[in-house]
Amino acid sequence: MDFNFYNPTRIAFGRNAIEQLDSLVPKDARVLVLLGGASAEKNGTLKKVRAALGSRDVQEFRGIEANPTFETLMEAVTQVRDSRRDFLLAVGGGSVIDGTKFVAAAVNYKGDPWQILETHGAQITTALPFGSVLTLPATGSEMNSGAVITRKETQSKLDFRSELTFPRFSVLDPTTTLSLPPRQVANGIADAFTHVVEQYLTYPAAGAAQDRFSEGLLQELIEIGAKKDLELDDYDVRANLMWIATLALNGLIGVGVPQDWSTHMIGHELTALYGIDHARTLAVLLPANLQVRREAKKEKLLQYADRVWGITMGNESERIDKVIQRTRAFFLNLEIPTRLVDYGLGEEAIEAVIEKLSAHGMTQLGEHQDVTLDVSRQILKAAL
Amino acid sequence: MDFNFYNPTRIAFGRNAIEQLDSLVPKDARVLVLLGGASAEKNGTLKKVRAALGSRDVQEFRGIEANPTFETLMEAVTQVRDSRRDFLLAVGGGSVIDGTKFVAAAVNYKGDPWQILETHGAQITTALPFGSVLTLPATGSEMNSGAVITRKETQSKLDFRSELTFPRFSVLDPTTTLSLPPRQVANGIADAFTHVVEQYLTYPAAGAAQDRFSEGLLQELIEIGAKKDLELDDYDVRANLMWIATLALNGLIGVGVPQDWSTHMIGHELTALYGIDHARTLAVLLPANLQVRREAKKEKLLQYADRVWGITMGNESERIDKVIQRTRAFFLNLEIPTRLVDYGLGEEAIEAVIEKLSAHGMTQLGEHQDVTLDVSRQILKAAL
Repeated sequence: MDFNFYNPTRIAFGRNAIEQLDSLVPKDARVLVLLGGASAEKNGTLKKVRAALGSRDVQEFRGIEANPTFETLMEAVTQVRDSRRDFLLAVGGGSVIDGTKFVAAAVNYKGDPWQILETHGAQITTALPFGSVLTLPATGSEMNSGAVITRKETQSKLDFRSELTFPRFSVLDPTTTLSLPPRQVANGIADAFTHVVEQYLTYPAAGAAQDRFSEGLLQELIEIGAKKDLELDDYDVRANLMWIATLALNGLIGVGVPQDWSTHMIGHELTALYGIDHARTLAVLLPANLQVRREAKKEKLLQYADRVWGITMGNESERIDKVIQRTRAFFLNLEIPTRLVDYGLGEEAIEAVIEKLSAHGMTQLGEHQDVTLDVSRQILKAAL
Repeated sequence: MDFNFYNPTRIAFGRNAIEQLDSLVPKDARVLVLLGGASAEKNGTLKKVRAALGSRDVQEFRGIEANPTFETLMEAVTQVRDSRRDFLLAVGGGSVIDGTKFVAAAVNYKGDPWQILETHGAQITTALPFGSVLTLPATGSEMNSGAVITRKETQSKLDFRSELTFPRFSVLDPTTTLSLPPRQVANGIADAFTHVVEQYLTYPAAGAAQDRFSEGLLQELIEIGAKKDLELDDYDVRANLMWIATLALNGLIGVGVPQDWSTHMIGHELTALYGIDHARTLAVLLPANLQVRREAKKEKLLQYADRVWGITMGNESERIDKVIQRTRAFFLNLEIPTRLVDYGLGEEAIEAVIEKLSAHGMTQLGEHQDVTLDVSRQILKAAL
């Protein structure tokens, strides 16, 4: 077990945490607040943010999409340059925060900013400081350095990361999530769950604490996912969901252990091609992926069955069948369909996705780099 | 659940991590390497550190004690000032790292540096940058901002913390721990275990992830503690112990939940008065503490019994009896005696400790601040 861990993002968590913006953002900052749709305005979050920023010089940029696009973000880059902004504040979910990371890195980038994605962040040498006010627990972007950006022009969805693109701080106020539509809450639970699985369900390695932490997060997400709408409207439940989704992808559970991410990579193509919600692509692909690769993942599937779901009866094959069924049922219980056909897609989608994976060099995915295009094809078939 | 979390310490973990010092320490740094006894020299760690620091201007300071003293550390402060050192590097265990934090804060402190302890760090406004090379997994000091310092003159043991006293980095090479005497390994396991318990075994709060993480760390420490000497000499076991001990006190499991720390506070007085190893005072006091406060801690004791030890049979009182027995047996299995009498102490020690607690204002300890001097007396009696 060899690794490097570094995560300097400050977390301000709680009911009135937005008020802390006044001490978190430099007094003389020329701030650009970046926003998605109208929800931050409607639910009162934006009003609280404006109040906390007080008399600072603040501008806003609106319209960052659910899968943030290079095209839109370059407009924000222009605004930052033209109006000499020196601090960015993302107010929204993972897409707005991802987009803000890109803007922070692109503003002073030497060369075409699309290279940031093509080189996955390796050539970032400077970034504007930025923070976030999270309104949707799901992606973990609030406490990591990575982002996924889509280029509309080419239907490409690529990621980057850099030590320079950690948020300086993230404000997590669980009350901002109480007005979320149930579909977005369900998506967030599914997304966080899959983030943990991608870092956990590979093959046995020496990461004892990482395994235990992952199992604990999965157990709690399963418990939250089983709650009825009314129970979900509880502050403590929302607070736990928010912190768990952050912990699911802040680097901690993934240090020094193998990681998979093939479900995400294939899913990104489904979103780029057909506009399916990111979390829903994961719910479709994860059970199929586990089914196709059940032999290579055998030891960890059995550990997952035992420690997370308490499945100890039956032979190995039966326990694996059962835990894959339970995983699918977890998504279905969130009212997230788990078959391509539920999204109006059939056989024809398979080769379209494979073509995109091929174009993006996604030909050796997974913890053993053995998820070739042919294995991806099998996974998509199993997801029909 | 409201909290702030911030931990910017970079971790370089693995077999050859010491080599990374060359990129972690500024090239032009005037370094003071701080050391405890001779073990870092004997086991080859110091040689690797010197090699990695290359041609930098390096001095050494030796002799930081197992419970680092103000008196010794002020000598290091003088050396830093006289020879204009601008970067500190602790090479050792928690005591050396704690001591280095104090030196970092004291060098430019306005006023008598003992005030740093008396005000528990609140008045630190600047600190020298420092890193650590950890050689003894136990205290977690390598990834937090706190330190405990003893003043010989008055037999006082006080703590401080400050956002300015996080290590810039800590190098964790598990191979450096392979030469540790079994007693120190056992102490480290007991110390890390008790750190988790102090943050976990209080009363039910909303911290779902914090509970799961704590339970996972305890389960793994129990597993490591049950190993025989030979099995303990395994790289992966040492690596897990090292990372688990760090995670036990890097702030993560304690955010937003009640904390106890009464076992530590009483234990510090036993160490200051009688020189008993810190970890051994915890093994003596923890089972007694749980016994005396079993009613107030009932819900969490039952959760601990169930989730950590798998104790589900019997009525509540029987399960609590059993889990306290198992906790004591865990320490005994590490060959750490759990009774005051085993350390040559009897009734006479009780009032001596109570007097010190009183002198240090430790009259309202624990998660409910209801561990008065009288409750501490009961705990010490139960530990006879």
